[in-house]
Amino acid sequence: MGAAGSRVERVLAGDVPALAQLMRDLDDGLPAGRDDLRTLYPHTGRAFVVGITGSPGVGKSTVVDGLITRYRAAGRRVGVVAIDPSSPFSGGAILGDRIRMQRHATDAGVFIRSLATRGQVGGLTRSTADLVAVLDAAGYAVILVETVGVGQAEIDVVTTTDAAVVITAPGLGDEVQALKAGILEIADVLVVNKADREGADRAMKDLSTMLDLRRQSALPSVPLLSVVATTGQGMDALRSAIDGVQARPAEARGARRRQQAEAQLLAVVTDITRAALQAGVAGDKAAATGKPGSVAALVDDIAARRTDPYTAARALLSAGMLR
Amino acid sequence: MGAAGSRVERVLAGDVPALAQLMRDLDDGLPAGRDDLRTLYPHTGRAFVVGITGSPGVGKSTVVDGLITRYRAAGRRVGVVAIDPSSPFSGGAILGDRIRMQRHATDAGVFIRSLATRGQVGGLTRSTADLVAVLDAAGYAVILVETVGVGQAEIDVVTTTDAAVVITAPGLGDEVQALKAGILEIADVLVVNKADREGADRAMKDLSTMLDLRRQSALPSVPLLSVVATTGQGMDALRSAIDGVQARPAEARGARRRQQAEAQLLAVVTDITRAALQAGVAGDKAAATGKPGSVAALVDDIAARRTDPYTAARALLSAGMLR
Repeated sequence: MGAAGSRVERVLAGDVPALAQLMRDLDDGLPAGRDDLRTLYPHTGRAFVVGITGSPGVGKSTVVDGLITRYRAAGRRVGVVAIDPSSPFSGGAILGDRIRMQRHATDAGVFIRSLATRGQVGGLTRSTADLVAVLDAAGYAVILVETVGVGQAEIDVVTTTDAAVVITAPGLGDEVQALKAGILEIADVLVVNKADREGADRAMKDLSTMLDLRRQSALPSVPLLSVVATTGQGMDALRSAIDGVQARPAEARGARRRQQAEAQLLAVVTDITRAALQAGVAGDKAAATGKPGSVAALVDDIAARRTDPYTAARALLSAGMLR
Repeated sequence: MGAAGSRVERVLAGDVPALAQLMRDLDDGLPAGRDDLRTLYPHTGRAFVVGITGSPGVGKSTVVDGLITRYRAAGRRVGVVAIDPSSPFSGGAILGDRIRMQRHATDAGVFIRSLATRGQVGGLTRSTADLVAVLDAAGYAVILVETVGVGQAEIDVVTTTDAAVVITAPGLGDEVQALKAGILEIADVLVVNKADREGADRAMKDLSTMLDLRRQSALPSVPLLSVVATTGQGMDALRSAIDGVQARPAEARGARRRQQAEAQLLAVVTDITRAALQAGVAGDKAAATGKPGSVAALVDDIAARRTDPYTAARALLSAGMLR
């Protein structure tokens, strides 16, 4: 096929310029993007989506880089969505060692896309799901979603993948260790990177103890691996561990997909509601600020304590003003 | 008054057991808590709400501790809401040096409450706003909201305060510095803590340069202070800088309050929508899984790619199923 036909047909044929253009349209919130995504949706669900998360400095990008190499060696096309924690206002992004991944940029079997976390909560889950769906429809067999596991929004993104790889490294502060305890519970595979550094044994031991505690509950067991991503040590084992998640029984995979669907549905509903609320405030202001019953008037009433957010929210939802 | 009368009356009289009980009811999602909050709402809006944020390890709790001491010396009652970044599943919390603050626990003019970030995005903004409203109604003149400025959800919380104090410290890694650039833009007051450490001059210089860049835009100027919270150095100046934000023109304060109201309204709407969605899925499952047109059936359809999240979301909102 190649460059012929509609944009949807070209994306389905794996045409890179077409999918890059569609992603830009989705970023810009253009209706054409949304329409194409809807048409593509029945063709998704084939890719295996792997979330890669961990605190800043654990070496996530290097691990992602190593996984790309291994999937490519096996002939599989790889898509990457790299989420940059960035300013909610200006969108400045962390580059750091993400540059490393760019050496795959000349490989037609690899597509890398960064996503800034500017914008509101919930929006991140939706944007990520959109990019994953486009890559999935375009035939990328494996999609890696890299995110910094520091905020609830980033954790939510990882829970909407087929497999969550949580990375840690020795030598991070106590507080970071405690943060990590939170995302440990979403892990399908647990990795200690930089295993050649001082403190790696201690980290493995600590995590092992935590996993033992977890094992006492009914949760599935979680492989714990030590790797040195910069040298490749342990990286084949990591790939195998991820394959192990993919090989889980159909029932477990189905439950996970339904969980993803529910999260996506909520993200889209939240997005629509937020857009309606903001458009309401802006529109009312443009017309006549504070006319009774309008969204802007309700916001003014809350600010002045003439009403409370709960009563106002019920009023908006009952009047069908947020859809 | 004291312990007599309804719970609302007792909270308004500043009765600590009554407000602690109300906070527990709100945590547990009891209708009685919501009803009391609604009744209290007209009595809120008097407190000055200060957000204190920064990366892990910058010494936020020590700064909060120093501010409590200074406000108390001036005879003002202080409420603290300390947000713990914790597991989304088990709610394990970071204690760290927060213990320090507890020395104020015997002071009847200070009320400290921790809030775990478990639960969904959006919920954090709502929960924080609820606790702030209760403390406000109970007559606490200053309310400090301490949060780790790492995730979008935590940043959102700070933007719903009257003044945002962003704290940094020398000796944090590059990536953390970059993260900080994001929350810099929400700052009303910027603080370099641990100013006696190596690298403090460099940090002051870097931030000064960033503020110069910001000054070229139309944004209001931001005071930059260096403090050593453990010794108290610079802490009086910090208090003065916060007073300076409180003394801004009525118009600026009004705009901020409307912004808060809008954020709170959205948070409540999102909460209601999410609860309705989850109740829908659970209820459908309990009754008959997947009966056509039900929420659970829609989720199944998305998971199986028989429909897409956008079409499903519109269907739910149009049918008024999420309120």
